[in-house]
Amino acid sequence: MSHTPHNQLDETIHQRTRLAIMAALSGVESLEFNELKAQLGLTDGNLSTHLSALERAGYVRIVKSFKGRKPNTAVSQTARGRRAMENYLALLQKILDQARERSQP
Amino acid sequence: MSHTPHNQLDETIHQRTRLAIMAALSGVESLEFNELKAQLGLTDGNLSTHLSALERAGYVRIVKSFKGRKPNTAVSQTARGRRAMENYLALLQKILDQARERSQP
Repeated sequence: MSHTPHNQLDETIHQRTRLAIMAALSGVESLEFNELKAQLGLTDGNLSTHLSALERAGYVRIVKSFKGRKPNTAVSQTARGRRAMENYLALLQKILDQARERSQP
Repeated sequence: MSHTPHNQLDETIHQRTRLAIMAALSGVESLEFNELKAQLGLTDGNLSTHLSALERAGYVRIVKSFKGRKPNTAVSQTARGRRAMENYLALLQKILDQARERSQP
């Protein structure tokens, strides 16, 4: 129903830590796992759990490699994740706009 | 930590149905329970549950009365709810803005 956009808000993105992760990954090529962890003040376990949920949805890509001898984990948003994020933000805006329109005299 | 605003996003408001309720109540004097239910496409039980959570947080006021012989339930946002909503929206904006700033070359 077009008047109930909140039902369509993507729960995978809406959870606040995942929203912060998706926002951080928006418009950047990729971020290193530890960089993302530091930026958002998360623990390893917490970030891993949320990245797994985002990966299962196909919203992020996680690539493990080595920089010399050091393991490196690069996280990036997929095209699907980018579209999901755009859709999420548009719906969020719609919820707030509709409330504003209704409140006009 | 100022760089991790997602931790401060008010969970009482962030839940998507409650966000829609708070948005619908923003800037209006009050809404009748059934009106709110219809606007958001919710069941009685679902709306009641979320209103209770918002009431416990002091964000909404629920006033039961009679219009003639018909019971009437008026729901309105409290001053505290209004401030919480403003704070929530400002933080949300901050999360999205910070992501945008970081993605600048």
